[in-house]
Amino acid sequence: MKNRGFFITVEGGDGAGKSTQLSKIKEYMHERGIDPVFTREPGGTEIGEKIRTIILDVNNSEMKNHTEAYLYAASRAQVVRQVIKPSLEEGKIVICDRFVDSSIAYQGYGRGLGPDKVWSINKDAVDDCVPDLTIFLDLDPDQASQRVEVRNRSKDRLETSGGDFHDRVYWGYREMIENQEKGIVWYDGRVSDIPRIVSVPANRPPDEVWNSIKDILDERLKGFGEE
Amino acid sequence: MKNRGFFITVEGGDGAGKSTQLSKIKEYMHERGIDPVFTREPGGTEIGEKIRTIILDVNNSEMKNHTEAYLYAASRAQVVRQVIKPSLEEGKIVICDRFVDSSIAYQGYGRGLGPDKVWSINKDAVDDCVPDLTIFLDLDPDQASQRVEVRNRSKDRLETSGGDFHDRVYWGYREMIENQEKGIVWYDGRVSDIPRIVSVPANRPPDEVWNSIKDILDERLKGFGEE
Repeated sequence: MKNRGFFITVEGGDGAGKSTQLSKIKEYMHERGIDPVFTREPGGTEIGEKIRTIILDVNNSEMKNHTEAYLYAASRAQVVRQVIKPSLEEGKIVICDRFVDSSIAYQGYGRGLGPDKVWSINKDAVDDCVPDLTIFLDLDPDQASQRVEVRNRSKDRLETSGGDFHDRVYWGYREMIENQEKGIVWYDGRVSDIPRIVSVPANRPPDEVWNSIKDILDERLKGFGEE
Repeated sequence: MKNRGFFITVEGGDGAGKSTQLSKIKEYMHERGIDPVFTREPGGTEIGEKIRTIILDVNNSEMKNHTEAYLYAASRAQVVRQVIKPSLEEGKIVICDRFVDSSIAYQGYGRGLGPDKVWSINKDAVDDCVPDLTIFLDLDPDQASQRVEVRNRSKDRLETSGGDFHDRVYWGYREMIENQEKGIVWYDGRVSDIPRIVSVPANRPPDEVWNSIKDILDERLKGFGEE
């Protein structure tokens, strides 16, 4: 299904700079007179934000990996049907902070459930809602974790996951990009000449990262909205 | 996989008398000197009870059917792994107020997602944890709804679902029993000579219903725990 609007997702490990770049995207869109719909995962809806609270609460340390995967899928099922699809059908640009790639990376690779299992759990949540563009902020997990350490807020349940968790998440993202280099752009095996995921090196000052993202947006949104 | 313990689930529409019969089961087990593990869905674990609150809250009227299905699956993934499987592995009797049959009946038939879709969403939550015995309290939905109306507590989000919802749930359960009459006892298509679901007519005084359940338990638990 071709989206009438344009669906952008922003991905990356914790500490890669997503929030900073999302603010810059928002500012830039407004300057250009575009009014995109911004949403996030988990959350993005009243019900999804309640689910988010359960997922991220550090007190829920007994949460099983499958439970975590289903809760993300539940939040996703809601935001896809309540926000993303209706907005795309109206022809809007939708920008989502994380989407199913995060589940593949975090629960599939990070938690070790495997990408196929996590996709099979998520298939019905996603409801064939495929991003037109995914911006991946590529930052080495060691550097990312240093950034997370100096943040001025307490860590959530996912951020506190130790060991090699964040390394596996990172290598999960890298593997997705490698699959894409074989032409595969989505988990149902579909191929395309246009890469869905664009990797942006994030080990640079925020303004340089932003310049790269701006170029991608200008390129991919060229002609968007014109008939 | 054969359970080392014995896994009993209790099913039925709202108002069929589950709570009353579960109390009687509990009392009887204690009299017999058996100490089963009682649990429930949604809920049964600290995390599951938080999920239950979201599912049943009447304020969450915007919840999509798929979101509902995933939240039940999330709660199930947790209780299966944290309570049911470990207890069965210790050789215990586990008695669960509702299990995946409820999702098939309520989300599959009631909400119209279809039994196959709901099973495919739930497969990984259930993790091959198949009840040895399911007691279905069979009560005509009109009579059940009259019982729900005179209850001394406010209705939850599922109970307030109107129209033919509760009729469809009931006919869903009936269809499961018909499938079983063909020998199919589980959603992966497995067959057995021993019926998993035992239907108990619930349009009778509670003590009569209980006598039927007691007979079933005495029969099915005969020799349980003996080597």
